Amino acid sequence: MTATTRTRLTPEQRREQLLELGLRLFAGTTIDEISIDRLSEEAGISRGLIYHYFGSKQGFREAVVQRAADDLIAQTEPPEGDDPIVKLLASLTAYVDYVIANYEGYRSLVRAAAGGNETVRAIYENARAAMIDRTFATPGVDALLADTPATRLVVRGWVAFVEDTVLAWCDAPDGVTRDELAKIVTDALPALVATLD
Amino acid sequence: MTATTRTRLTPEQRREQLLELGLRLFAGTTIDEISIDRLSEEAGISRGLIYHYFGSKQGFREAVVQRAADDLIAQTEPPEGDDPIVKLLASLTAYVDYVIANYEGYRSLVRAAAGGNETVRAIYENARAAMIDRTFATPGVDALLADTPATRLVVRGWVAFVEDTVLAWCDAPDGVTRDELAKIVTDALPALVATLD
Repeated sequence: MTATTRTRLTPEQRREQLLELGLRLFAGTTIDEISIDRLSEEAGISRGLIYHYFGSKQGFREAVVQRAADDLIAQTEPPEGDDPIVKLLASLTAYVDYVIANYEGYRSLVRAAAGGNETVRAIYENARAAMIDRTFATPGVDALLADTPATRLVVRGWVAFVEDTVLAWCDAPDGVTRDELAKIVTDALPALVATLD
Repeated sequence: MTATTRTRLTPEQRREQLLELGLRLFAGTTIDEISIDRLSEEAGISRGLIYHYFGSKQGFREAVVQRAADDLIAQTEPPEGDDPIVKLLASLTAYVDYVIANYEGYRSLVRAAAGGNETVRAIYENARAAMIDRTFATPGVDALLADTPATRLVVRGWVAFVEDTVLAWCDAPDGVTRDELAKIVTDALPALVATLD
């Protein structure tokens, strides 16, 4: 990247470029290890300008985490179609692939959210709530999921099941394939909901 | 408590008394808020003696967390009997009651374990592993659970489901009763395992 290219970026493009770079760093590291020095080096711009765009190191990290959550939601958007289980399987296969590709960062996000960073927890809880709401709003799912307190509780618990199972699988796949994993976490939802009948 | 009673305690009894007090404090607070001052006041002994028994504030907190994990395992011991689902229901009802009675401390344990305190995480992971191993070792369960990598993964994920569902229920029971909750988390295990067939 040359100085000429750099000066051509608008502030929005620059901010975008920094977030994209932050995301790449975040995929292989923990939130607290997202390095402003490395970012500044890779983007070829000064630390001061990074602070200008994001206010503080923490502000930058939170923007990266927010972007990661947005990406996760976008990448796991269920496809068009009629069969809710087929749609769920496609969405969860995308989720598994997302976790595989962004393992360190995703694990770090889940841990930071569970551990007590309030901002990260809010980002994470909002993303989780958006995915749960989307699940209930998917056409065809109403046949599968009555929107009752017990079902909401089970769907929420199912999300925890999916997260834990996929992260545990990344640590030790142990002969279970990616497709088998996606099927396990997909089939879990109707199986859990069916116990409420 | 009088000075006379205090001097009669053996070191083991004193250690035990401090742990019991720590547990009571822990039930309504987070790990990092277990207060040595309050403990010293309630036990009527000096801070110095507490450090003598546990080495440091952190040493005391870890001993309390270890004891909490031991108590959880003991209190959720499945009863004698033939029907694995009846045994599981009894064990999980005891678990729900444990979480209700020790909500703040338990949530804090789960968060600290997820968040990055390595010692707490090790205590928590060992307790979790002990409960999973006990589930597989329960007579009658072999009919329910083939010990395969996929089943281990599902049982591990089920534990996450149980934890998350019970903690979410404590935050907002929303009309779901304690018995309904215990049944939901119990029925979830065979339902999840059945999806592997």
